[in-house]
Amino acid sequence: MASFLPNTSPLTHLTAQLKRLPGLGERSASRLAFYIARQTQNQSSHASSLARDLAKALIDVADHVVLCPVCQNLCTGDQCEICKDRGRDDSMLCVVEHVQDLHAVEATVAFRGLYHVLHGAIAPLDGIGPHDLHIPELMTRLKQNCIEEVIVATNTNVEGDATALYLSQIIKPLGIKVTRLASGIPLGGELEYLDQATLGRALNERREF
Amino acid sequence: MASFLPNTSPLTHLTAQLKRLPGLGERSASRLAFYIARQTQNQSSHASSLARDLAKALIDVADHVVLCPVCQNLCTGDQCEICKDRGRDDSMLCVVEHVQDLHAVEATVAFRGLYHVLHGAIAPLDGIGPHDLHIPELMTRLKQNCIEEVIVATNTNVEGDATALYLSQIIKPLGIKVTRLASGIPLGGELEYLDQATLGRALNERREF
Repeated sequence: MASFLPNTSPLTHLTAQLKRLPGLGERSASRLAFYIARQTQNQSSHASSLARDLAKALIDVADHVVLCPVCQNLCTGDQCEICKDRGRDDSMLCVVEHVQDLHAVEATVAFRGLYHVLHGAIAPLDGIGPHDLHIPELMTRLKQNCIEEVIVATNTNVEGDATALYLSQIIKPLGIKVTRLASGIPLGGELEYLDQATLGRALNERREF
Repeated sequence: MASFLPNTSPLTHLTAQLKRLPGLGERSASRLAFYIARQTQNQSSHASSLARDLAKALIDVADHVVLCPVCQNLCTGDQCEICKDRGRDDSMLCVVEHVQDLHAVEATVAFRGLYHVLHGAIAPLDGIGPHDLHIPELMTRLKQNCIEEVIVATNTNVEGDATALYLSQIIKPLGIKVTRLASGIPLGGELEYLDQATLGRALNERREF
């Protein structure tokens, strides 16, 4: 933003706040701030203002969204919708890195068990160890409930693989089956365009008909 | 977002509001909403919360940012910083489409005159005519002040060119000089990689040494 805009200007301040969002740099944040300010000018006092609506939605999230004490999913009550649902298979637990991953698994409609959200993956280079994630809560849960299988659905990168390996090592001694999502060629994938690592893994994990 | 999230969920609502921002689709809006909700969980009650800070900045913009009644720039007082600055050359007026364009011109430090922001360009296909822009305010201003030159700094696309042509036709009869920003090869540009239209325009508008 040009230097003649005073640092105390609401637009400068909004730009600074927008820059805290992931993927937004100085330029995009500044563009959004101008857009929001401009939209707000366009509205008559009765129409809904983008700035005020967005502010209200943000406050609403800050006021009402909490972590589910059972599975660490985001929720608005004392437990999340999935943990509250008595119709789900409580012998299966799917462990994911992020809330978005839970939504992705849920969208497949292929899993009817319960979840546990770690809110990250083990990444020693970033200083993230097992105790920075919600792994202690997971272990307590496994010890207190009759869970037969833990499906580790972490990402298939170095951090996700390390987390999966670590979890399998601490969960197996409890006598619980630990599985990992299959990795290989995505549906609709063409071998020619696949990366070597995926193709190599698909070869190693080939199945018999 | 997966269907089991109720429509009344603060997260669903925040996603819907974020989708109103330009360039944000369902997926990016949902990612941002989750990120904001997650950040808010991380904060202790004393630390500054992203959701609340952003909401405050938005309300601040909605409450305090208005259009400058003289030049239509965004400002917080009764006139913008540029119109208030008595040190500027009030015989020159630079007409731009958007507030961002004003900032871009201002950043060159090559112009010390005043501005007028149209908040758009003439675009008949989108139903935007001269009276949907701040052209009447511009004409009133030109008639009431001693302006010697109007520099039309609209974009070099069909809408910007049409707006520039229209402005030149209605301003020239007032006896005011109307100029347009030079268009041609950008500095550092290589002819080989330039589009035909730019190179063609650079040829047509070639200058003698």
